Amino acid sequence: MTGKEQKPRVAWNPPFVTGYPLEERILLSHGAGGRKMHRLIREMFLARFGNRLLARLEDGAVFPMPRAQLCLTTDSYVVQPLFFPGGDIGKLAVSGTVNDLAVMGATPKFLSLSLVIREGMERRRLDLLCRSIARTARHAGVTIVTGDTKVIEHGPDELYINTTGLGLVRPGVKLGPELVRPDDVVLINGPIGEHEAAIAVARGQFRFRTRLRSDCTPLNRLIETALKAGGIRLMRDPTRGGLATTLNEFALATGLGIVIDEERLPISRPVQGVAELLGLDPLYMANEGKVVMIAAPQAEKRLLALLRRNPNGRQARRIGTVVRTPKGVWLRTRLGSLRPLIMLEGEQLPRIC
Amino acid sequence: MTGKEQKPRVAWNPPFVTGYPLEERILLSHGAGGRKMHRLIREMFLARFGNRLLARLEDGAVFPMPRAQLCLTTDSYVVQPLFFPGGDIGKLAVSGTVNDLAVMGATPKFLSLSLVIREGMERRRLDLLCRSIARTARHAGVTIVTGDTKVIEHGPDELYINTTGLGLVRPGVKLGPELVRPDDVVLINGPIGEHEAAIAVARGQFRFRTRLRSDCTPLNRLIETALKAGGIRLMRDPTRGGLATTLNEFALATGLGIVIDEERLPISRPVQGVAELLGLDPLYMANEGKVVMIAAPQAEKRLLALLRRNPNGRQARRIGTVVRTPKGVWLRTRLGSLRPLIMLEGEQLPRIC
Repeated sequence: MTGKEQKPRVAWNPPFVTGYPLEERILLSHGAGGRKMHRLIREMFLARFGNRLLARLEDGAVFPMPRAQLCLTTDSYVVQPLFFPGGDIGKLAVSGTVNDLAVMGATPKFLSLSLVIREGMERRRLDLLCRSIARTARHAGVTIVTGDTKVIEHGPDELYINTTGLGLVRPGVKLGPELVRPDDVVLINGPIGEHEAAIAVARGQFRFRTRLRSDCTPLNRLIETALKAGGIRLMRDPTRGGLATTLNEFALATGLGIVIDEERLPISRPVQGVAELLGLDPLYMANEGKVVMIAAPQAEKRLLALLRRNPNGRQARRIGTVVRTPKGVWLRTRLGSLRPLIMLEGEQLPRIC
Repeated sequence: MTGKEQKPRVAWNPPFVTGYPLEERILLSHGAGGRKMHRLIREMFLARFGNRLLARLEDGAVFPMPRAQLCLTTDSYVVQPLFFPGGDIGKLAVSGTVNDLAVMGATPKFLSLSLVIREGMERRRLDLLCRSIARTARHAGVTIVTGDTKVIEHGPDELYINTTGLGLVRPGVKLGPELVRPDDVVLINGPIGEHEAAIAVARGQFRFRTRLRSDCTPLNRLIETALKAGGIRLMRDPTRGGLATTLNEFALATGLGIVIDEERLPISRPVQGVAELLGLDPLYMANEGKVVMIAAPQAEKRLLALLRRNPNGRQARRIGTVVRTPKGVWLRTRLGSLRPLIMLEGEQLPRIC
C-alpha cells in the first residue's frame, strides 16, 4: 500500500481531545458493575457493536454452531500510541485476531472484546476506537458477541484491548507443518515492515513527513480466496518478530530448511529509510496485514494471480523456497552467498501490537 | 466457608520475592515474539498448562465440536493485590470465566489465556500464578488451549489477565428472564461479600488478624448438578456490584419485582465487620464463588438439598421471592417494612476483580 495512495502528504494528526469535563471521561465507577457501567455499555458499546446476542447483556453469548472444527485464538493489544498512521488499537485488535484465525484456515465468526481503560480517558477518544472496532469487524464479517470493561485508577497507558476470536475451519481445509515438502514455495502478499515503521513514526521519533502507513488490516477474505484455490500447506501472519521469526517457526515445525532471496524481498523505500535510521532490520519488523504462505510449487502461479486481484495482495510474490538441506532459514544475498537468518533475539521496538 | 474451617489464625503471608537477578525476571524481550518469548512459553506455560493443542504453538487452537449451542464469555482481571487470602489473580481469572459459562447453562470446555506483564516481574511470582491457573483449570475441568503474552515497560501493576471461555450448552437446558414467574424463589449458595472483604483485608486497610478468605472458586460442578435437577429459570454470579445489582438486573430483564428477606441474608460476622469499618454494604460487595438462582417454587427443596451436598453450597438458602408487584428490588427489613434496593451507584472498592 505504501507509496501508492494519492493522499496528501500532511503530517499525521492524532485525534487528541483535551480539557473535557469529568462527565465526558471514563471514571472508576464505569468499571464497578453498577448503573454507570450499564449506561456506558448501552450508550457506547451497544450503539457501536449492537447485535441480538450482545444486546441480551448476559454473562456470555449463546449461539448455535454446526458440527465442525472450531478455531479459538486470543491476543491482548498494548500498542503505543493508540492512534497511528493507517490504524489504531481498535482496528489492530480486530485485524490481528481475525488474521490469526484466517491463517489457521478458519473463517472468523465471533469476537469477544475486553477493555481495560485508565480512569480519565476521554469518552470521545474511546468512542473513536469503538467506531474503528465496529468498522473493522464489519469489514471482516465478524460479530462482537460478548465483552467486558474494567477501569484502573492510574498507569502510563489509556487502554488495553483483548480480543478473542472463534472461527469455523472450512471443511476440507488441511494445513500443517507435516504437509510441507522440499521445493515448496514461500509466498508473501506484499512489502514487509510497514506496521512497525508506522509505529516508530507515530511515536514522533522523526521530524520528517512520511507517507508511511501501517499495513494493519483483516486478511480473511484474501486468505479464503487463496484457500479455495488449493495448494497451500502452511500459513502464518508475520507480526511480532517479523518475517524472519515466522520463517524460523516454519523451519522448526517442519524440520526443513528455507532459503529466501534477498533481491525478491519486498521492502518499500520509506520502510528501508526508517529501518536504517533506527538500526532495525525490516526482516524482523512487525507486520499486521501480511501473510506468509508455504505452497506447492505447481500452485504458485495460480495463487499469486489470485492474491494480486485483492487490494491487500497487489504486490504478492514468491520470496523463497523450502529445501531439504541446509536446515534452518537462510538469506541468499544479492552477491549469491547464504547468510543464516535466526529467530529474533532480544527485541526491535517494544509495544508494537 | 468463612468462620468454618479450622485453619490457624495467622496473618496472611503474601509470596513476595525480592532482589532477584535480571534473568529471573520478565523482560521486554519476553514479549517481542522472538527466541526469549518462545523459551518462556515452553519453560513456563507449556510446563504448567501443557496439552496437545497448546503444544502445537500455533496462532490458535483447532478442535472438533459437536453440533451444539456454544457459549462464549470474556473477562479481564485487574485485581489488586495479585495474591489475597483465599486466592490470587490466576485462580480468579479461571473461576470468574468458568462461572460466567456455568450460569449461562454451559459446561466450560476451553479457555484462552492472555497475559499483560510488566517488565521486571519476578518469574517465580508469575510461575506461582501459572500453577494456580493450572490447578484451578484442572479442578474445573477446562483446558487452556491458546494464549498470548505481552510485556509492557512500566505501570503500577505487575499483571493483567484475560481469560475467554468456550462452553457447550447442555442439551435441553433452557434459561432466561422470559421463564421467570411470580412466586418463583430466589436462592443463593452461601454468604455474601467474602471476596470484596478479603481484598480489602489484603490491601492492608486493617491492622487486625482475620480468618476472612475470598470465596473465589469455580462453581461449574455445583451448577451442573443443580441444572440436572431442573426447575432453575435464571442464574447469575453476583460479582462486581454484588447481590443487589444482580437482583436489579433480574428485575429489569424479567419486568417483575423481587423481595429479599433481610433476616434470611447470609452474611458472616467478619464480612459484616469489614463492611461496617469501611462503610460498605454487603449487598453491594463482590462475590466470586456465589450464584443466585431463580427457580420454580416446587423445586426449592430439591435444589437446596442438592446444593448443600456440595462444599460450595453448604449454606445454600432461599433469600427471597419473585412478585408481580411492586416492580424492582425490595428488601423486607427485620421490622417488616420494604426498602428499595437499587443498582450500585458509583463504586464500592475499585479493582476487586
